[in-house]
Amino acid sequence: MDSVRTVDIIDKKRQGHELSFDELSHMLNGFTKGDIPDYQMSAFMMAICLKGMSLCETIWLTKLMIDTGKTLDLSQIPGIKVDKHSTGGVGDTTTLITVPIVAACGGKVAKMSGRGLSHTGGTIDKLESIPGVCTKRSETELMDIVNRIGCCVIGQSKELVPADKLMYALRDVTATVASIPLIASSIMSKKIAAGSNAILLDVKVGKGAFMETLDDARCLAQVMTMIGEELGVRTIAIITDMNQPLGLSIGNRLEVSEALLLLSGKMTKGNPLYDISTLLAAYMLYLSQVVDTPKDAYPLIEEAIRSGLAKEKFLSLIEELGGDTSMLDINKLENASIKLDIPSDKTGYINAVDAHKIGIAAAMLGAGREKMYDVIDPAVGIILKKRVGDAVMQGESIATLYANDTKRLNDVISLTKSAFSFSDIPVTPSPIVHDIITAAPSLAQDVLK
Amino acid sequence: MDSVRTVDIIDKKRQGHELSFDELSHMLNGFTKGDIPDYQMSAFMMAICLKGMSLCETIWLTKLMIDTGKTLDLSQIPGIKVDKHSTGGVGDTTTLITVPIVAACGGKVAKMSGRGLSHTGGTIDKLESIPGVCTKRSETELMDIVNRIGCCVIGQSKELVPADKLMYALRDVTATVASIPLIASSIMSKKIAAGSNAILLDVKVGKGAFMETLDDARCLAQVMTMIGEELGVRTIAIITDMNQPLGLSIGNRLEVSEALLLLSGKMTKGNPLYDISTLLAAYMLYLSQVVDTPKDAYPLIEEAIRSGLAKEKFLSLIEELGGDTSMLDINKLENASIKLDIPSDKTGYINAVDAHKIGIAAAMLGAGREKMYDVIDPAVGIILKKRVGDAVMQGESIATLYANDTKRLNDVISLTKSAFSFSDIPVTPSPIVHDIITAAPSLAQDVLK
Repeated sequence: MDSVRTVDIIDKKRQGHELSFDELSHMLNGFTKGDIPDYQMSAFMMAICLKGMSLCETIWLTKLMIDTGKTLDLSQIPGIKVDKHSTGGVGDTTTLITVPIVAACGGKVAKMSGRGLSHTGGTIDKLESIPGVCTKRSETELMDIVNRIGCCVIGQSKELVPADKLMYALRDVTATVASIPLIASSIMSKKIAAGSNAILLDVKVGKGAFMETLDDARCLAQVMTMIGEELGVRTIAIITDMNQPLGLSIGNRLEVSEALLLLSGKMTKGNPLYDISTLLAAYMLYLSQVVDTPKDAYPLIEEAIRSGLAKEKFLSLIEELGGDTSMLDINKLENASIKLDIPSDKTGYINAVDAHKIGIAAAMLGAGREKMYDVIDPAVGIILKKRVGDAVMQGESIATLYANDTKRLNDVISLTKSAFSFSDIPVTPSPIVHDIITAAPSLAQDVLK
Repeated sequence: MDSVRTVDIIDKKRQGHELSFDELSHMLNGFTKGDIPDYQMSAFMMAICLKGMSLCETIWLTKLMIDTGKTLDLSQIPGIKVDKHSTGGVGDTTTLITVPIVAACGGKVAKMSGRGLSHTGGTIDKLESIPGVCTKRSETELMDIVNRIGCCVIGQSKELVPADKLMYALRDVTATVASIPLIASSIMSKKIAAGSNAILLDVKVGKGAFMETLDDARCLAQVMTMIGEELGVRTIAIITDMNQPLGLSIGNRLEVSEALLLLSGKMTKGNPLYDISTLLAAYMLYLSQVVDTPKDAYPLIEEAIRSGLAKEKFLSLIEELGGDTSMLDINKLENASIKLDIPSDKTGYINAVDAHKIGIAAAMLGAGREKMYDVIDPAVGIILKKRVGDAVMQGESIATLYANDTKRLNDVISLTKSAFSFSDIPVTPSPIVHDIITAAPSLAQDVLK
């Protein structure tokens, strides 16, 4: 009896045993086809949350998830296609920066991106904050654009990994999001189904990230790189800091503006957004085999920015997506109706800027959404004036709010203020790159035996 | 937002934290009213299975479950009403035996019983195996019968603890049955709602029981007695052995026949069914305050059997329930069309009789049900000829199968055989009573502070 088998498999996981490929297949395909009801799947996923999964189970689960839908065939784009994924952060504009840089340096990026949720932003929302941009594009359009300009970013196709959509909707309402095997298989199934040959993962760690500890981030990074390598996709993960927002701008058009500033050569080494973006671009070019080592990519990247080619690629991308490039002007991008400076209550040094609180404050202004179908306001957000380690005088601005609605402004002001903490003595910011993880394919082979 | 609250509560339990009364109330009442969907409740119950509940949470949950339905008011029956519950066993005919004995000794039993499921038997199935018996009775009929003859056993009312029915149906298909807090609250909510002043629990331990280890059985017994005392019902638990079937008969009419044999004075001390039944009856009379100590009850019990009064009470009960007492004859009760002796393959001593296997074998013959609405055959079952410790010769009968259908007979023969294991040297049976648990109300008070 099939129903008996389902309960036996849930029970096996409840007892903490490793499931076979066939057992995982029964659960996953049964659920995707609608034969296994939500209440069995949610109990199963809670058991996974609390009892875990082996690496082997996680790889199988990812493979099974991919096989529930279509897989993109990017073979019409010659050469290596490199993808990039961030686990979600605040002020994380790196996709808008790295994609044109990589294309300017000879790499190929055919990428699908997501929307923001809760306190984290999403690349698609940022792109669509530019009037005219439409990211709902077919597979053929994606390939055509990449073949013309070397890169393209479009919205997620609904045909890839339908199991993930069903599972995620259920996890979201049953407190089963926080599970490394479920997070890893969700991310990697979508990335692998999207058809690139190599994936660079930016795993965020800290208060504004889903992984709050370095141990968890390292574990997630290791599992994801193993999944990638086992399923035939070169994968490297960089663990970066998300205790404070990465860039100074949080909010869709504000982040486009900051990305443009970087691509126009107006940021230099030592700026966290610049340092992380160029590191990611260097690894993407290394994975693309454009260079032999990530280090070799730096001269190319610097030249792409200096020459204006990287910015040109960005403008081409916006044009290809139907966007109005005349909008890509700082005065037009930073044009919310209310601009309000938040003064510092203290004199001293900035000790911390809580990325989660800043993300939530920006979302409350309208830059993000609580639920998947909430409408966002592209113009609003926050520009930070101070970062960890900066000296500050009482009354000096620590942040500027960009708003179009006074309704929730008071809540946002106090939340933004509460994100900053101060020190009387100088503060050294923590490192922004914590680790670089490459899978050890031989180890994975051992585990899979 | 209410949906947010639900997921937060599930998350809190996933993290292993103790929930407040209000949080438990939100989950339980939301689920019972249909506001919280099955998929959230099943994830919540899986989290309870794996993270547990404190004694305090378990008591609150029981109280909340009781409050979802009606509570029986037995005040029209004067004096103390004592109830009895067995956690489910094989060849466990003790309700049919203790209830008339207690009534014969001056106690009052107004009891609701359940049906059998999987390998365990149920009192209602046994009573209904007697032609004419109808256990679907109103509260008023229950009280009238008790007031006439001192005891009555009827089927569970659907109005008591509706939450339990909904939760159990979901637990059954989501592998969330095996949880001491969920088992304890399920049993105790139904028992307390059934309105008696005192409850004697028979917690079975061993291969044929839901609790397989003595530690688990003791834990369940302790939690249940604490719940009872905290919610105002005197509760004692006796932990008894269920490694081998308690009585020799397994199957509905066969068990009625064995109960009658005991009530007719044809069993004596040293017989496990006699020893356990009289111990349970002694504690029920102690809880009823008919005697000052359980030990004081023994002379009364022995006299009730010797005089025939206990058997008379049983016959009165069957009559009150509409049953045909002329059927209560060994030749009419043991009348399946096929009687098949199972010969021993070996000469030696019986080392073990696996109660779970015997229960399943009897169910396969038609004595039990796999699913709640399966129809059972009252006549079929197994009579064991040998118990642990008995000497046996090769070819001698170890059990007799009573069947009405040859279809699954071969499977049952080999399963029955496999339940017996043998030893070349004499075997001493393990004790049949493992522990007697009384709640320490002062301890419970401490925990609840």
